[in-house]
Parts: sequence; C-alpha cells; structure tokens
Amino acid sequence: MAATRLVSTILCLLLLFSSTTAKKIPSRRREPCKQMVLYFHDIIYNGKNAKNATSAIVGAPAWGNKTILAGQNHFGNIVVFDDPITLDNNLHSNPVGRAQGFYLYDRKDYFTAWLGFSFFFNSTNWHRGTLTFAGADPLNKTRDISVIGGTGDFFMARGIATLMTDAVEGEVYFRLQVDIKLYECW
Amino acid sequence: MAATRLVSTILCLLLLFSSTTAKKIPSRRREPCKQMVLYFHDIIYNGKNAKNATSAIVGAPAWGNKTILAGQNHFGNIVVFDDPITLDNNLHSNPVGRAQGFYLYDRKDYFTAWLGFSFFFNSTNWHRGTLTFAGADPLNKTRDISVIGGTGDFFMARGIATLMTDAVEGEVYFRLQVDIKLYECW
Amino acid sequence: MAATRLVSTILCLLLLFSSTTAKKIPSRRREPCKQMVLYFHDIIYNGKNAKNATSAIVGAPAWGNKTILAGQNHFGNIVVFDDPITLDNNLHSNPVGRAQGFYLYDRKDYFTAWLGFSFFFNSTNWHRGTLTFAGADPLNKTRDISVIGGTGDFFMARGIATLMTDAVEGEVYFRLQVDIKLYECW
Repeated sequence: MAATRLVSTILCLLLLFSSTTAKKIPSRRREPCKQMVLYFHDIIYNGKNAKNATSAIVGAPAWGNKTILAGQNHFGNIVVFDDPITLDNNLHSNPVGRAQGFYLYDRKDYFTAWLGFSFFFNSTNWHRGTLTFAGADPLNKTRDISVIGGTGDFFMARGIATLMTDAVEGEVYFRLQVDIKLYECW
Repeated sequence: MAATRLVSTILCLLLLFSSTTAKKIPSRRREPCKQMVLYFHDIIYNGKNAKNATSAIVGAPAWGNKTILAGQNHFGNIVVFDDPITLDNNLHSNPVGRAQGFYLYDRKDYFTAWLGFSFFFNSTNWHRGTLTFAGADPLNKTRDISVIGGTGDFFMARGIATLMTDAVEGEVYFRLQVDIKLYECW
Repeated sequence: MAATRLVSTILCLLLLFSSTTAKKIPSRRREPCKQMVLYFHDIIYNGKNAKNATSAIVGAPAWGNKTILAGQNHFGNIVVFDDPITLDNNLHSNPVGRAQGFYLYDRKDYFTAWLGFSFFFNSTNWHRGTLTFAGADPLNKTRDISVIGGTGDFFMARGIATLMTDAVEGEVYFRLQVDIKLYECW
C-alpha cells in the first residue's frame, strides 16, 4: 500500500510537471546555432566606372541625379547593388556569393540608411542557398539588422547581423563586414 | 507484484506521453508577449517645405515627378522617409525613435501601398533597438502588416502591426497609429 | 522495498528525460504545415498599354528611362506592381488576390532580381489575409525565396516559396508560378 501511495504521488507530480512544460514553449537561449563573418564590396557607378561598378543610383529626390549621391546626406537616394561576398576583407579574393538588393538613404541631417538584400551563395565548396536581411542602418560603428529568412543550406534561418563599415574610399567604394549570428536553424 | 505492474503501466503511459510531446512543438498561443501603441508622422517634401519635410518622393512612373505625388492614385511613387515616432498622437511630443524606410503606391484604380521600414529606438528612458516591418497596405480603416524581425530590446521579435491612419492633411502630412503585437519574444 | 527502489529509478530516469526535453526546442520537421500553388501575372507599362498594365518602371539607372527596361540586363530598374493572383495559369481566371510590391534588377552581366512583395487575399470563398515575401531571384528555372510573415488566415506564417517563370511574352508580360510551402503555422 505504501508503494502504491508513493506511485500515485509520483504520477501526480509528473503529470503536473509534464502539463506545465507542455503549455509553454521552452525559453530560448541567446546562443547562436551558427555564426559566420563575411565581407561585401560596393563600387558605386559614378558615370566613369561602368566596367567595375557593382551598384547604381536608381532613385533620387527632386534635387538629385543618378551619377552623384545627393546632397543633404544622400537623403532620398536608392542604390541597387550586386556586390561580391568574400571570406576576408580583400576585394580580389575569390567570391563565395553575391550580396544583392538595395539600400536607401533616409535622413537629411545625418547619414542613415535602410537595407533590404540577400546573400546569394552558389559555392561548390562553401555553401549554397540564401540569407535575406532587412533593417535600419544608423551608420554607427556597429549596427544590428535582422536576418529575416533563409533557403537552401540556410533553410528557414533567422538571426541578427552586425554590420561594420570596414573601409570607405570617397563616394565610390565601401566594404562592409557582416557578422551573422543565426538563432533559428532547422 | 501488483505494485510492480502498476509501476510498469505508469512507465509506459508516461513514456508514451513524453514521446508525444517531444515530437511536436507545443501549439502556440495567439496572445501577445508584448504590446505597444505608437504613432509616426510623415511630412512629404513638396518643393516648398525642405526644412520640415521628413520624407521625399524618390521614384516616380513615366507620368510623374518628384515634388507632386503622381496621378492615378500615386501609382508608381516611391517615398523614402525618416519620421519621428511618438507615444501619443502629437507631432510635437518628444520622439522616442524614428520610423525609417520606404513606402510605394502600387495600384492605379485605387490607393494601395507596400511598406518596408524599421522603428529605430534610441531612447535612454524608453527602449533601444529596432523592429522591422513589411507588408501590403490596402489603406483600409485598419490593416495588418508583419513584424519580421527585431534587435536590441526587441531581439528576434516577430509579430503583427495594425496600422490606422490617424490624420491626413492634404498631400503633405499624415499620421499613422501603429498597434504592435509581438507573438515571439526571446 | 524492491518496488520502492524501482519507483525511485523510474522517477530519476523520467526526471532526467523531462529535463532534457525541457531544455531544448524539439527538432523541427521539414514538412510543410500548409502548401499551395498560385500564379501571378505581370503586365509592364510600356507607354502604350496604360489600360492593361499592372506594373510600371519607377526607378532607372542613369542610362535608363521609365517606359523601356534598361540595357545591361535591366540593371538598376525598379518595377512596382499590383498583379492579379489566380489559382491556375490563366490570366483571365477569377483572381483570388493581388500580388503587390516591387522587384528590381541588380546585375549588369546577366539577369538577377530582388523581390519584396505581398500576396493580399481578400476572397470570400478562398482566403483572407496576407503573406509577405522577400529574397534574391537568380532567374534560374526554379528559385527559392523566403516567406517572412503573414496575417489573417496566415497569421505569423513563415516558409519558402519556389518561383518558376511560367510564361514570358517579350518585355511586356510574364507569369510566375509560386509554390508556397509554410513550415510555421499558428
């Protein structure tokens, strides 16, 4: 009888415990399931560099044009890009993919941008698939944007990407370091 | 022996129960883990209000220009914005952040828009971080768009934002009420 | 006593098992919780088809204009669209919704695009709500983009959409088949 009572107690406790865990999603850990650091390189078309340019101004405000980024901190410029992605910070390294999409400058009184783009990987010895990013870029030293989806090797991924401007050469070239931390991996 | 049989039965039942819960993600509740109501204020550049404008037309169809929203329900206009966010509906309240991104008008026969933007919070006494939004805006009384990601205080957030046009003054000013319900909080 | 020892052993094992499952999110299955195949139809404004056009060029590079897609694989063109969605591949079938948003061409040396758009469903006998998509489109035979959010009947949905160009007529009409697989349904 003592054994039976003990068993009943265990049963009650465990059912209680089980029903508690069943009701709520386990709290999620803020440790990335995947992390990688990549670079991409943007060469803006300026009317003279058609051969090398990887991006072009395609939208401009009333006071702007398509070959020079507009005054007032480029407010209103939309730039479309297809930039090489490299594993180190060398423009001439073998690209592992292309960064494709757009950015726009959205503030008059200082530099801020908004980005929507994908990393498209098509590498036989690295990765295949895409990661898609969106978010505000306050152009601080580092800034976080969202990884909003993935396909292929990055099926259904979500996470955070920390951007850092790694180099700027006038208004023609810049290089971004992208520290990608995925927190949802399938 | 009776106690042992009872224990075996409990064991079987519990293993069955545990393996069932292990196989499927617990069904998720449609109750927000965070909710907030915010306002943002858009003052479109019209060629005369450069000082106050917070947005500008940067894309226009063949029949449009950059200082007046195009005919045919503004079809084809892209507007880039950096708008103040306030906790109440007063344009002159102290902003808690900036709404940054773009909207575009995508239909000839009546007003519809598509939005991609972020709320960028940089407040010492409210929140720091971003929420990023995307979605179709049929310009009904209320309409839902998606919260597709977050950073900082809104790390990895997802949810739904219900937009309501709270005021319109001609084609120069509008104010949106944004009722944000997050269903994924980390 | 034997029964009590047995019970203790079971208790330990089950607690161990339960605490293991409580700590990690159950691994997720790559089986869609919802799948559907839809079509949408894009008729680009070319200066002569204002009545039928469902999309228009609104951004162009320095060498482009708003009525003809630019040379160099349309690099730099942004197109805004509001296209009918049908359940089969017939442009004249009764639409169940509208595909609204934009695409842009982002590469000089061959066709690649980037898309941000929503499916807006407002059907009394099919679905109501939205799905929002974003991603790179390499314009291969099939290509995957991300479903980054949903509202209404598709509350909080996420998934993958496989695009296939189903028909092209010159530079005026194309039809995309969209095979949507949702992996997160609420």
